[in-house]
Amino acid sequence: MEKQKYNGPTDHSFTKSEREALYKTIFTRRDVRAQFSRKEIPVDVLSRILLAGHHAPSVGFMQPWSFTILQSEQKKTAVLELFKEAHAQATEMFEGERQDTYRNLKLEGITEAPINICVTCDKDRAGPVVLGRTHMMEMDEYSTVCAVQNMWLAARSEGVGMGWVSIMDPEKLKKLLGIPENIIPVAYLCLGYVSHFNDQPELQSKGWRERLPLADFVNFEEFQATSDSDYAKTLIQKIGESQKNLQGDDPLKTFLEN
Amino acid sequence: MEKQKYNGPTDHSFTKSEREALYKTIFTRRDVRAQFSRKEIPVDVLSRILLAGHHAPSVGFMQPWSFTILQSEQKKTAVLELFKEAHAQATEMFEGERQDTYRNLKLEGITEAPINICVTCDKDRAGPVVLGRTHMMEMDEYSTVCAVQNMWLAARSEGVGMGWVSIMDPEKLKKLLGIPENIIPVAYLCLGYVSHFNDQPELQSKGWRERLPLADFVNFEEFQATSDSDYAKTLIQKIGESQKNLQGDDPLKTFLEN
Repeated sequence: MEKQKYNGPTDHSFTKSEREALYKTIFTRRDVRAQFSRKEIPVDVLSRILLAGHHAPSVGFMQPWSFTILQSEQKKTAVLELFKEAHAQATEMFEGERQDTYRNLKLEGITEAPINICVTCDKDRAGPVVLGRTHMMEMDEYSTVCAVQNMWLAARSEGVGMGWVSIMDPEKLKKLLGIPENIIPVAYLCLGYVSHFNDQPELQSKGWRERLPLADFVNFEEFQATSDSDYAKTLIQKIGESQKNLQGDDPLKTFLEN
Repeated sequence: MEKQKYNGPTDHSFTKSEREALYKTIFTRRDVRAQFSRKEIPVDVLSRILLAGHHAPSVGFMQPWSFTILQSEQKKTAVLELFKEAHAQATEMFEGERQDTYRNLKLEGITEAPINICVTCDKDRAGPVVLGRTHMMEMDEYSTVCAVQNMWLAARSEGVGMGWVSIMDPEKLKKLLGIPENIIPVAYLCLGYVSHFNDQPELQSKGWRERLPLADFVNFEEFQATSDSDYAKTLIQKIGESQKNLQGDDPLKTFLEN
């Protein structure tokens, strides 16, 4: 946070080791549904995770989020029941082999995780007209998601696993937690220390779905349009190479070179 | 990314300097609407920013995002017209002094920023039934927002400013960029090197809205409920102290010192 003499427009980049730390956090973050330890998260660690969320960007500086922390077995068990009900319904939506795989995936760690947090969005936090929300009313929910992602990265850096459980009826969750009509439950999170972080996303290692090649989803000037410019061609090539290197044994070694 | 011998559940935390780098990135990230330099963003830097986005969490490992990169003056100017139209409409929604302030804020850097990126969400990327989206159909948009937040942090660490422009009619943007009906434009981003990053969010320094006290929005067991447990009381106290310290001259100095 030191002030530096300004030496040109690229001068605000962080040091290589600082950037490496950020990318390491991003690439090793996992959605954690198992491996939770009962070990309590110290208040200073949880405080930092919440403050990381609070420093997310928000439309019109609205800061529309609230964090409801659940620690009691009773409340967590009631939430788990909501999950089980929705999970049974969801299972019926898949067919054949896919249904069997779905049924056998571990998709939540609600009662194992010492801390659960319901992150909500208050659409009335800053009055009816919000700067930047006038033409996209979902912007406040999107801001709340930015807070969740900051928390996820902070948690990873603190060695705390975090999982997002979305398989439940949001209306029933609102009723259970006493959330008023105008407040939206955006994310239900489970946090705790873990025995390990998986090398790959679980849905990847269990064969549910592959990591897609990013270069296929980068367009130029128009949706799904390619470009013959040198910049575009070099970028697409670079993305392909970097993504390939990221699958290697020591991905960060080469990620920041050049 | 080195493998470590497992020494207990807190053993997966990063080093103090690595965690400090992450928090520094989170706390100094800004929504940038001005100060853009014309200096080109090198392809390897943009590639890293996009790959950071691609490694966001996504519901059912859906990876529903696409990135449409705009560099042409023609397209950017057309997008700027969409902003101007929406901005004029929005101005009328504010009253009195607030309207004057709104009118004078610089809310976009569309044509000044060398790179614009429209981040879209393809709700059909993984078929009609998506693991984790069965009871919350907006989860794929939320995943796309996680990608945006990863990009924002990566950009900050690279010294690249990024701003999210939400003041435009999404339907008109879709038409302009040839985005099909089933694809949602989640974020329109402006990226470029900058003369400086502001110390505070602009809406804070210009008196539009204050940073809220986080402790007021942390609840226990139920929405807006407090708790008398030692954990809850200590956490609330810690959050208040840490947030106060974050407003000091060298906030990171004490942030990680419990």
